[in-house]
Amino acid sequence: MKHYSNLESLENFEATVDLALELKKNPFVFEELGKRKTIALVFFNNSLRTRLSTEKAARNLGMDVMVLNVSDSWNLEFGDGTVMNLDTAEHIKEATQVIAQYADIIAVRAFAGLKDKVADATEKVLNAFIKYAGVPIVNMESALSHPLQGLTDAVTIKETVTKKRPKVVLSWAPHPRALPHAVANSFVKSMKLCDVEFVITNPVGYDLDPKITKGITINHNQQEALKDADVVYVKNWSSFDDYGQVTNTDSHWMMTKEKLGHAIFMHCLPVRRNVVVEDAVLDSDQSVVIQQARNRTYAAQAVLKTLLENIT
Amino acid sequence: MKHYSNLESLENFEATVDLALELKKNPFVFEELGKRKTIALVFFNNSLRTRLSTEKAARNLGMDVMVLNVSDSWNLEFGDGTVMNLDTAEHIKEATQVIAQYADIIAVRAFAGLKDKVADATEKVLNAFIKYAGVPIVNMESALSHPLQGLTDAVTIKETVTKKRPKVVLSWAPHPRALPHAVANSFVKSMKLCDVEFVITNPVGYDLDPKITKGITINHNQQEALKDADVVYVKNWSSFDDYGQVTNTDSHWMMTKEKLGHAIFMHCLPVRRNVVVEDAVLDSDQSVVIQQARNRTYAAQAVLKTLLENIT
Amino acid sequence: MKHYSNLESLENFEATVDLALELKKNPFVFEELGKRKTIALVFFNNSLRTRLSTEKAARNLGMDVMVLNVSDSWNLEFGDGTVMNLDTAEHIKEATQVIAQYADIIAVRAFAGLKDKVADATEKVLNAFIKYAGVPIVNMESALSHPLQGLTDAVTIKETVTKKRPKVVLSWAPHPRALPHAVANSFVKSMKLCDVEFVITNPVGYDLDPKITKGITINHNQQEALKDADVVYVKNWSSFDDYGQVTNTDSHWMMTKEKLGHAIFMHCLPVRRNVVVEDAVLDSDQSVVIQQARNRTYAAQAVLKTLLENIT
Repeated sequence: MKHYSNLESLENFEATVDLALELKKNPFVFEELGKRKTIALVFFNNSLRTRLSTEKAARNLGMDVMVLNVSDSWNLEFGDGTVMNLDTAEHIKEATQVIAQYADIIAVRAFAGLKDKVADATEKVLNAFIKYAGVPIVNMESALSHPLQGLTDAVTIKETVTKKRPKVVLSWAPHPRALPHAVANSFVKSMKLCDVEFVITNPVGYDLDPKITKGITINHNQQEALKDADVVYVKNWSSFDDYGQVTNTDSHWMMTKEKLGHAIFMHCLPVRRNVVVEDAVLDSDQSVVIQQARNRTYAAQAVLKTLLENIT
Repeated sequence: MKHYSNLESLENFEATVDLALELKKNPFVFEELGKRKTIALVFFNNSLRTRLSTEKAARNLGMDVMVLNVSDSWNLEFGDGTVMNLDTAEHIKEATQVIAQYADIIAVRAFAGLKDKVADATEKVLNAFIKYAGVPIVNMESALSHPLQGLTDAVTIKETVTKKRPKVVLSWAPHPRALPHAVANSFVKSMKLCDVEFVITNPVGYDLDPKITKGITINHNQQEALKDADVVYVKNWSSFDDYGQVTNTDSHWMMTKEKLGHAIFMHCLPVRRNVVVEDAVLDSDQSVVIQQARNRTYAAQAVLKTLLENIT
Repeated sequence: MKHYSNLESLENFEATVDLALELKKNPFVFEELGKRKTIALVFFNNSLRTRLSTEKAARNLGMDVMVLNVSDSWNLEFGDGTVMNLDTAEHIKEATQVIAQYADIIAVRAFAGLKDKVADATEKVLNAFIKYAGVPIVNMESALSHPLQGLTDAVTIKETVTKKRPKVVLSWAPHPRALPHAVANSFVKSMKLCDVEFVITNPVGYDLDPKITKGITINHNQQEALKDADVVYVKNWSSFDDYGQVTNTDSHWMMTKEKLGHAIFMHCLPVRRNVVVEDAVLDSDQSVVIQQARNRTYAAQAVLKTLLENIT
């Protein structure tokens, strides 16, 4: 693996899930591996969980960590051949290469703009880092994917559910603001790589990118979809067809204790209580959201360990 | 001690003061104690001294440090049962537990709003961390108290004043802006725990919370109060009765060389020169404000050492 | 060397250049030197390269690093005797001394305001740190100089150019915004200390401070100046005579492949493509700008090593 840009980057998904679970038991066993190595965490968007868990993961491996919160005043140019006499002060070609002079691995977060489907699909920030930096790049949530979260989710299911081939349901939830598709996309990809029965349920008009959900059952009837579920993963996303729009805030899609049945409840957080999911679910033993958050460290650590081993 | 929320948290105040003085002589003697342990410093308000000194203290103990400056965009919900369909994006229940997944100790700063006495008295941020996080919490200044400062102040007095049972005066000073009561409150509590003769002097209308000053002489005549003082601690606070208001800016309350006499001068900093205290005091040998700032490291280190020893 | 405020601070410039090149080959050979030592990086202005490279340099030496981004809300007072009853909340006297209580070395960045030539020339922030802090100060770009960049530039030339006494040309370039003189000033000083033939070319009205360029040829004809150049260092600066003004944006001063000839191309970055220099130069093998950025680490490391050795 040269970069961790997506779940497909992993050469062996299942082995990586197992490695994360091993690291959770013995987080410091590879603390010599990252010695004298530096990771730069570059955030074009805010972060709590991803920042802290990736920083912790890197330190567990003995790495130094440099956090760079990119302010709005750092106007980057992405165009080829642009005469940069207006707002942009630095070209992404230089910016990426420069950061790479001070870091052995670069992790980068750059959300979808949710205004232009074609533009978001180019993953211009993530791909520019991959193209120019010359060091391994880790995706800390890009326009279309959040593979550290997707990996964490598989780790959490494997850790929690003992049943063979459990039924996992990704259930859309309402939200007042337009959210990206990255988490949902990566959860779908993650479940495709796991030995689970997987169903997605969302309102009409909210189907995810069909290239990603290809082969997966999408049921617009939430009640049917949730039947006999072992794991319910709740997440809002904005419309993909009416790109980036909030066309539905129907509170009937909120997850409730009743709908959940005996399934475990998962969510990537942050979560709006009593909008996305009712208190009774989050405050019950069936919720594993905090465990999911904890597993972010070990998923990141498994990825960083793999990348470090490939650095001579 | 499970948490360091207030000076009362310390099981043995005097021993902690002595420990801080020991650590000042040998700061690195416990540098193995915090190895593989992480402290998250969570700031809801700006910080210079507290951030640097707590970070330094943690590193002296071998800990990793993650600093989290909470931006205004992280709107936290504190209400129970709220339908979070407006501005708040994450509930404090999740936020605190999540940070605790990545940190062995969490230190938190959340100032008083100074608008609502009852609300400030609930210490909602600090207490939410204590209630939900599940790891030791350190108060880096809350609405009502600043126990790291209060401990430092006792350390500095013990280090500086050889006289038995010295006279210590807390003298209010004018200030153009409304400041919280936290530092003054914790200094009062600290002095109650020391073997000193303690007097507070402030204008009428500026008495601190009587629950905190119970048993302490408050003299509204500054000249009388300062008589034969060995230590003068100067600090502004806004009115407690007219909660959070600045009802008095009388420059006659400013500390001067003449008023100070032979006492040493203390202040937590930052300090407005020639408003709170005249240059001649700050620039004299009687001022120990820089030493006080230095001692912040060792007070924090004593607290962190004690908390670390209780973590298995 | 007590402080690294300027290139003149170095007791032996050439030995420091050589040390940087040695450190590039063996960055970790002095990793015990900075153990238990802390550097505070204090930024009054944004930074990418300087922050990351100085942080990396310090960690390569085993130091702890505390980054302090000074927000606008930290209004510092610089005046003597000021009655601080308006906007300023802390005097630089206290601020500098306080930071020094938590750091063994302080590095500080404070750009020129470019509004008042006399005020900028006082270097009030840098000099206040030197005057009050009581610990070694490193200049991470002040109003008038950027000696870490100047040292890097000499390192890069020595590393790249084998020819004896090469011809080095500092060539002004157009830029839409008013930029400081610090990088240009330090490059001039650096070249004065190297065994090179040095020429500056800039438009009429853009001559740098004559006190700095004394003894150096300034040729207002770019074509003549660039003739037979081995190294071309391109940089914009605002007018020194019409202080801080942009009086010329003539695109004919942009560096092109044709003008560059066989010289290597240097720039401190960030650089505006096709305004300061055309793509064909930056994307050619003649450009060493990324190597220059990399060398920032080793120049800073050479400086920090020298300062650390002087701390008992």
